[in-house]
Amino acid sequence: MADILHRVGIKSPINEVYKALTTREGLAGWWTSNTQGEGNKTGDVLQFRFGAGGFDMKVIGLQPPAQVLWEVIEGPEEWIGTKVSWELKQEGDYTIVLLKHQDWREPVEFMHHCSTKWAIFLISLKSFGETGKGAPDPNDVKIDNWN
Amino acid sequence: MADILHRVGIKSPINEVYKALTTREGLAGWWTSNTQGEGNKTGDVLQFRFGAGGFDMKVIGLQPPAQVLWEVIEGPEEWIGTKVSWELKQEGDYTIVLLKHQDWREPVEFMHHCSTKWAIFLISLKSFGETGKGAPDPNDVKIDNWN
Repeated sequence: MADILHRVGIKSPINEVYKALTTREGLAGWWTSNTQGEGNKTGDVLQFRFGAGGFDMKVIGLQPPAQVLWEVIEGPEEWIGTKVSWELKQEGDYTIVLLKHQDWREPVEFMHHCSTKWAIFLISLKSFGETGKGAPDPNDVKIDNWN
Repeated sequence: MADILHRVGIKSPINEVYKALTTREGLAGWWTSNTQGEGNKTGDVLQFRFGAGGFDMKVIGLQPPAQVLWEVIEGPEEWIGTKVSWELKQEGDYTIVLLKHQDWREPVEFMHHCSTKWAIFLISLKSFGETGKGAPDPNDVKIDNWN
């Protein structure tokens, strides 16, 4: 098993960052404009769609405003059954966000791509939190020939 | 043991990208302006310095233009003994770069930070390869309260 790990600090109140991870409007503001569903109750399902495909995430854990846990229930084969864990904490002016995309079965090349892409979207989340404007798909930064 | 993985695609010839990873001028163009030493022979040592500190890397493997392998011999305790592996290959117009920063002893919070920061510098490498201008330290994108 292998994990993708990331850390960003956002100059925005922790409750606002939590909202950006648990509401359709928030998620559409930094990850993908085409976000459907709900994300603020355990059992909710979120549907994230990109040009080529997407993911469905089931909310399996919430501790406002400190933790969000999703399980991938639909999407690329490599993603199914993996978990996406968000931990939030305040440090000075910053809300620190720790992301773990856990339990990849193999460290395949696609995992390398997704790791870099997660960083791009976390910078988008940071910008969304600090300025109100992120760069969600289809306006995200492209990193390679897989997009 | 835990690894940081990333993938970028750079619209630049593979030999140019290899040069950006094995020459002082190249490395100073996208990672840190304060780069000393040499990186194009096995046994060479590169010294990367940032505001707060830095790393020394020993070149332990080279296969031009496809592979570069460094071992961290000086720097933050968590980095010492880890390896940084670069794999390059051509795919259409792109030179694909696979980065592995391998053998972290524990998936500590600092590893989360370094993972996101690697992505930032890979985007800088991409920009350096495609336009001749990267964003090396001290002009790098800041991601959190650790910089």
